[in-house]
Amino acid sequence: MSSTAGQVIKCKAAVAWEAGKPLVIEEVEVAPPQENEVRLKILFTALCHSDVYFWEAKLKLKCPFILQGQKPLFPRIFGHEAGGIVESVGEGVTELKPGDHVLPIFTGECKECRHCKSAESNLCETLRFDNDRGHMLNDGKTRFSKNGQPIYHFLGTSTFSEYTVAHAGCVAKINPEAPLDKVCVLSCGVSTGMGATLNVAKPQKGQTVAVFGLGAVGLAACEGARMAGASRIIGVDLNPGRFDRAKNFGVTEFVNPKDHDKPVQQVIAEMTDGGVDRAVECTGSFQAMISAFECVHDGWGLAVLVGVPSKDDAFMTHPMNFLNERTVKGTIFGNYRPRSDIPARVEKYMNKELELDKFITHSVPFSEINKAFDYMLKGESLRCVIRMEA
Amino acid sequence: MSSTAGQVIKCKAAVAWEAGKPLVIEEVEVAPPQENEVRLKILFTALCHSDVYFWEAKLKLKCPFILQGQKPLFPRIFGHEAGGIVESVGEGVTELKPGDHVLPIFTGECKECRHCKSAESNLCETLRFDNDRGHMLNDGKTRFSKNGQPIYHFLGTSTFSEYTVAHAGCVAKINPEAPLDKVCVLSCGVSTGMGATLNVAKPQKGQTVAVFGLGAVGLAACEGARMAGASRIIGVDLNPGRFDRAKNFGVTEFVNPKDHDKPVQQVIAEMTDGGVDRAVECTGSFQAMISAFECVHDGWGLAVLVGVPSKDDAFMTHPMNFLNERTVKGTIFGNYRPRSDIPARVEKYMNKELELDKFITHSVPFSEINKAFDYMLKGESLRCVIRMEA
Repeated sequence: MSSTAGQVIKCKAAVAWEAGKPLVIEEVEVAPPQENEVRLKILFTALCHSDVYFWEAKLKLKCPFILQGQKPLFPRIFGHEAGGIVESVGEGVTELKPGDHVLPIFTGECKECRHCKSAESNLCETLRFDNDRGHMLNDGKTRFSKNGQPIYHFLGTSTFSEYTVAHAGCVAKINPEAPLDKVCVLSCGVSTGMGATLNVAKPQKGQTVAVFGLGAVGLAACEGARMAGASRIIGVDLNPGRFDRAKNFGVTEFVNPKDHDKPVQQVIAEMTDGGVDRAVECTGSFQAMISAFECVHDGWGLAVLVGVPSKDDAFMTHPMNFLNERTVKGTIFGNYRPRSDIPARVEKYMNKELELDKFITHSVPFSEINKAFDYMLKGESLRCVIRMEA
Repeated sequence: MSSTAGQVIKCKAAVAWEAGKPLVIEEVEVAPPQENEVRLKILFTALCHSDVYFWEAKLKLKCPFILQGQKPLFPRIFGHEAGGIVESVGEGVTELKPGDHVLPIFTGECKECRHCKSAESNLCETLRFDNDRGHMLNDGKTRFSKNGQPIYHFLGTSTFSEYTVAHAGCVAKINPEAPLDKVCVLSCGVSTGMGATLNVAKPQKGQTVAVFGLGAVGLAACEGARMAGASRIIGVDLNPGRFDRAKNFGVTEFVNPKDHDKPVQQVIAEMTDGGVDRAVECTGSFQAMISAFECVHDGWGLAVLVGVPSKDDAFMTHPMNFLNERTVKGTIFGNYRPRSDIPARVEKYMNKELELDKFITHSVPFSEINKAFDYMLKGESLRCVIRMEA
């Protein structure tokens, strides 16, 4: 048992006091874990688009995940891609113990509900992600505070803190040999994109795949297509500057919708004798979703939607596009179950069957966490890893 | 070799001279089959909605299958659900010979193209259904004529004739013991609905299924759900008079959207703790398509679209409905391959594993074929079998 178990821990956390304002490194109090919770010492955390999205909060009104009219929660500790070590565990936690190496995950797995028992779903009924919840499920309270003022949680992870508390069902126990500064990116974006291709689109060897959006999630989808042996991987993005980097993730051709007068789905259909076998949409633009669906081949084409749409968006297509035997489906976290599947992904990295290093383009010490936001907002970074101890 | 092989056959056919006007039994000439064609003696044919749809031709402008501006084809011989016997075969036909018992099918299978070689598609590139074609593929001409005037074909089958000519790739050779007056209904509607459930929706034993539209195709979808062991089969129809009959096809509950103030998808979600596992849409109404999709459960729900939409329809839904891991796909002819799969369906009937008789509600002699149209237009019949020889 660690000497801090059962005690309030004082540590540094990057607190977002207001929407869109730079985070402030503060000394905060982190309460001990309650029943079915664990307290983690975070060693590395990465910045993901969703952190920025909810930190900016200006999208609050358009995000469909959010109940209309509800106010953004501040002060809040963001962060949900991370690697750490269990410091202490609450009552009833049997599968984790102090010292375990773990990845906290933004969506959980209770292993008991209909979703966890279904072979098809990873949307746990109890521990499903909820951007809108700022407290712990146990008691509806926060474990973070500063001078008695509660500080809200984010996605049940809040990894922009030296210590955090998570539900044990939202924590994947991994190989302690794995370098946490690398495998931390499996917590969200890379798994989301790669899983969308490998678990949901499932291209067969030699098939063609189009990927819409060449950010980190889209490139992970491309990487999944490369690993599956796709013969052609068509990257679609409005920014031609992204093509060179995309080649390292298997992209063989690039289409910029701005370069064409006709709809991009038609351009792709003409390039591929009627359409690609699989498409993966990673932008969140509803136009891209429609194009991704309409660019797949009739008879067997499948489009997978990954990007998060806005509240007022509509997916609209002629029903004949379905009748001609096309399929569209969506996925969250690449259909991975956090506790059951992610440890094996880490093993794949250890066995050199999975490349993660190329997703990590930047690294900063915790004190410079706001730089990670700048890199992302400028479109420079894929993943910026934040070192808590350096 | 039959004595008629190679000769023009004079026989009776029910000719549609004009859109929406009663068919007229005429003596027509049927030319011998050309390369890769067969001439069939039709013994029984049934009336399907698609015959009526194209005979009425008033829907011509709204059917998305049809090139805009193209004129309806008349005179024409309709009919595409039938059972018959091969009278003679054209050059190059090796898999069929005179005397074989067959079902002509409105969409073909060349066994050579990308679709036929794909495990997922039944939309043969060469012989795919084409309502708009009134001639044979070989020479762009018709095999039917009357006093030198060509009479157009329909769906490559034109079974409202004592003899017809079809491409050999559009003919399924079946067990000669099978009663053609029963198994003829496997040529289209029953296979379409049943296959949509068994081949595409694939409910697991104990799962819940909603079926939109309780005509012959919808009831065949219900029957498929019953055969798959669905625990609940929810029939949705605007006509409450259809519920009693639907019980014979496994329907356990009935929902009439008109009985509710809230959208039917919400009604179904409330009945089923969040949504059905599978939905099959058999009406062609785009509102029903949207409801069918939105009434499936998140995480694993799958909606299958079967009904033929109108030209200006749009399928519209919020993209979050996909992101929460719902799937929608379409199917034609229940994903059955006509030559590879239909003979085995006939065997299922012979082994009493498949009930067909209950779909056949009426029977008329060929001379009274217009009565079959009346029964369908009044909504009285599921299938009316027309006896060519009686």
